[in-house]
Amino acid sequence: MPRLILIRHGQSQWNLENRFTGWWDVDVTEQGAAEARAAGALLKMRGILPTVAFTSLQTRAIKTLHLVLEDVGRLWVPEYKSWKLNERHYGGLTGLDKAETAALHGEDQVKIWRRSFDVPPPPLAPGSEFDLASDPRYAGIPVPATESLKDTIARVLPYYESAIAPVLAAGETVIVSAHGNSLRALVKHLSGISDAEISSLEIPTGQPLIYELADDLAVNDRYYLAER
Amino acid sequence: MPRLILIRHGQSQWNLENRFTGWWDVDVTEQGAAEARAAGALLKMRGILPTVAFTSLQTRAIKTLHLVLEDVGRLWVPEYKSWKLNERHYGGLTGLDKAETAALHGEDQVKIWRRSFDVPPPPLAPGSEFDLASDPRYAGIPVPATESLKDTIARVLPYYESAIAPVLAAGETVIVSAHGNSLRALVKHLSGISDAEISSLEIPTGQPLIYELADDLAVNDRYYLAER
Repeated sequence: MPRLILIRHGQSQWNLENRFTGWWDVDVTEQGAAEARAAGALLKMRGILPTVAFTSLQTRAIKTLHLVLEDVGRLWVPEYKSWKLNERHYGGLTGLDKAETAALHGEDQVKIWRRSFDVPPPPLAPGSEFDLASDPRYAGIPVPATESLKDTIARVLPYYESAIAPVLAAGETVIVSAHGNSLRALVKHLSGISDAEISSLEIPTGQPLIYELADDLAVNDRYYLAER
Repeated sequence: MPRLILIRHGQSQWNLENRFTGWWDVDVTEQGAAEARAAGALLKMRGILPTVAFTSLQTRAIKTLHLVLEDVGRLWVPEYKSWKLNERHYGGLTGLDKAETAALHGEDQVKIWRRSFDVPPPPLAPGSEFDLASDPRYAGIPVPATESLKDTIARVLPYYESAIAPVLAAGETVIVSAHGNSLRALVKHLSGISDAEISSLEIPTGQPLIYELADDLAVNDRYYLAER
C-alpha cells in the first residue's frame, strides 16, 4: 500500500532567531541535524523505509532528507527536487525577526500576515539583499515577490498531483522533506482541512508524519510516528 | 562550453584495509569525507560549479557527491543515480584483503585479475555474505556475479551515451561521483586509452578531474584541478 512520509526540516539558524526565512537559504543548526538523524533512526527502527524522495531546492530541506536517508541506509533512493516544494515566500518580511517586524508593521498586522489564508506580506523590495533574481538555482523559475499561504498551496498541489501522486499510486513509500507551509499545503489537501484552520496547524520540525493510503490514495490513517 | 568533472569517492574503510570492495556498500572514512570536502572547496575557489550530478547506487560515491555539493553551495542541483556507475564487481574476491587473496589464489593470479582487461575473478559464491540478491537497492537490476574491467565498461559507456552525454551536449557542467573502475571506463572513452593501458591508470580518490569539452563533446583539455 502507498505510504507518504512528510518531514519538516530540522531547526534552522533563523528558526532559532525567530526570523522570517521563506525562500532565503538558511542552513540547519546542529540541533536541526540531530533532529533529522533521530527521525531517520525512528523510521529505520519502525521499518518505514522510503523508496522515493522529494524535496525543495532549499539546503535545510535537502540536508534533512540526506541525514534521514543516511540513517535509514537509503541514500540510494531516487531523489527529486523542485522549487514547488519551497517554503512560502515571505516577501518584504524576509530576514526580519519578530521584534523588527512588530516595530515596522505593528503586531496586529504581523498576525494577519502570519495567520490569514490569502493575505500576502508586502513584496520584497527590488534590490533587497534577499533578492534571488541572480541566484542560479532559480534561473528560469518564476520567483514570487511574496506569497500568501493560498499562493503557496497553488504551486504545491499541482506538483503533488503531477509528480508525487503517480509515484504513490505505483505503491511506493514516498518521503517529502519540505517546509512548514509547503507541508501545510499537502496536509490540507490530504486531510481536508479548511482554509480557516490550516494557517494555525503547526507541523513540528523533524517529526515524521505518516499517511497510510489506499490504492486510490484515499487516506486510511495519519499519525506522527513518534506517537504510535 | 560543456564541462565534465569526474571524482572518485574519498577513501573508504575497505580502501584503508586494502580489501576488494566492488559492489559491497562500504562507507567513506573520516579522511575520505575530508577529501570530498576539500574537493568541493577547490571547485568553489576555482569557480567550477556543477549544474547537474550523476552518481552510483553506492553510499561512498553518494556521500562524496553530497559533501562536494554542500561545499560548493549546490546541494540543489538535479542528481541522478544509477547502478551502471557502480564499481567493478569483484565477484568471489569481495571482502578479501591483499594477504587473504594471495594466500587463496597466489599473487600472480591476483595480479591477472587486477590488471587484465577482460579476465573476471571467480564469481561470488551463492549464499556468500556479500550476496546482494536480497538488497532492495538492486531489485530488478541484473546484479553481476563478477566482472572484468571490460564488463564494467560495457555497462558504463551506454549509460554515458544515453544519460550523461545529452546533458553535456546541452552545455551543462556535469559532475560524476563514482569509482575507480567506472571512472576508468569514462576516461578510456574520452581520452582514447587502449585496452592494454587502461587497467594500470590510477585515478586518485577525491581529486576533481576536469574535462573541457567542445560542443560536439570532443575533448579540448583534461587536467586534475589541483595541478592547474
